[in-house]
Amino acid sequence: MRPYDERLDRFLSRAAKVFADQGYHSTTMRDLAAATGMSLAGMYYYVRGKEELLHRIQERCFTRVLAGAERALEGVGRGHADPVERLQTFIRHHVTFFAANLAEMKVLSHEANSLTGERQRKVNAIKRRYVDLLEGLLRDVAPDEPAVERSAAAYALFGMMNWIYNWYDPAGEIDPDRLAGLIARVFIGGFADARSPSPVHGG
Amino acid sequence: MRPYDERLDRFLSRAAKVFADQGYHSTTMRDLAAATGMSLAGMYYYVRGKEELLHRIQERCFTRVLAGAERALEGVGRGHADPVERLQTFIRHHVTFFAANLAEMKVLSHEANSLTGERQRKVNAIKRRYVDLLEGLLRDVAPDEPAVERSAAAYALFGMMNWIYNWYDPAGEIDPDRLAGLIARVFIGGFADARSPSPVHGG
Repeated sequence: MRPYDERLDRFLSRAAKVFADQGYHSTTMRDLAAATGMSLAGMYYYVRGKEELLHRIQERCFTRVLAGAERALEGVGRGHADPVERLQTFIRHHVTFFAANLAEMKVLSHEANSLTGERQRKVNAIKRRYVDLLEGLLRDVAPDEPAVERSAAAYALFGMMNWIYNWYDPAGEIDPDRLAGLIARVFIGGFADARSPSPVHGG
Repeated sequence: MRPYDERLDRFLSRAAKVFADQGYHSTTMRDLAAATGMSLAGMYYYVRGKEELLHRIQERCFTRVLAGAERALEGVGRGHADPVERLQTFIRHHVTFFAANLAEMKVLSHEANSLTGERQRKVNAIKRRYVDLLEGLLRDVAPDEPAVERSAAAYALFGMMNWIYNWYDPAGEIDPDRLAGLIARVFIGGFADARSPSPVHGG
């Protein structure tokens, strides 16, 4: 772990906003300097170029959301708590984290395939751990669900939660905690509680 | 309505794939000519430029999915059918339509704000009608749900369905009909059947 660097942290946040607004491929290092208020020399002190910058943004964001989810789940330890409560905890953490980081969420989504080689591999490894964490929670909640359905359900849940960067306004009528509650209620009510086979399947 | 033009239709499909793969802003008319096999002159016969092309792709896709949903719902007419069955019909149509049009779905999502002026306004008007259609179905299914929750639930459902362009392989283990069944089961089970207030809300 690098020591915490507030200036770098602020720069990565602002750069994420620029990538979210105008797209990674259309953005130059000069655009980033102008929009973040950092000099080109200052930027090159931190990153060798635009792709390393995108990598740092993605790595930082996935690392933070994974660590945060693990910390939140420590409070509702495996084996000692209701699996449904653990899943609610994961959902609440994910939604409130990204409601506060909508620009990052858009960049993670739109630029998921913009990294290359080792950088892409490293980010995918953290992402994989995060998906595995959710799939483990779903296994505890619905142990009888077939693996292929459980995996699809994990992505359906990520879809509900991640799509918010397209429509959600954290300053609007519904605050992040209430949104997290709605998503948890819909998903858990439908995935964990519904035991009947789908009426649409095969229809 | 313009008369159906197969050559145009194929061109719009291929162009959507190019925009999905390399992004609208990074794509030139020359790239499109090379990738679609149409001459520049042929392209300019149909569209005046790249933005008109993006507009045609978005307008065609939203028009088709709206018309398709309305047709599918005619078979389960309002007032004559179970609201849950109507909602299932909408979900199945949306998922199977976009499972067959993943490139278009990515373009609709990533380039939602790339159109300007009148073109953006026209596409948004069709999109609004489509969202209204879903919100009406949700009202019939859960008339007691507060409007703000219902609207958020509509976007949560679109999130589950639209996110598939990030992960779903129609040739993989789970076919589009089975995926639609899973999404309908999760959403309807959680939204329509769960009547208790969220245990996460306020927690």
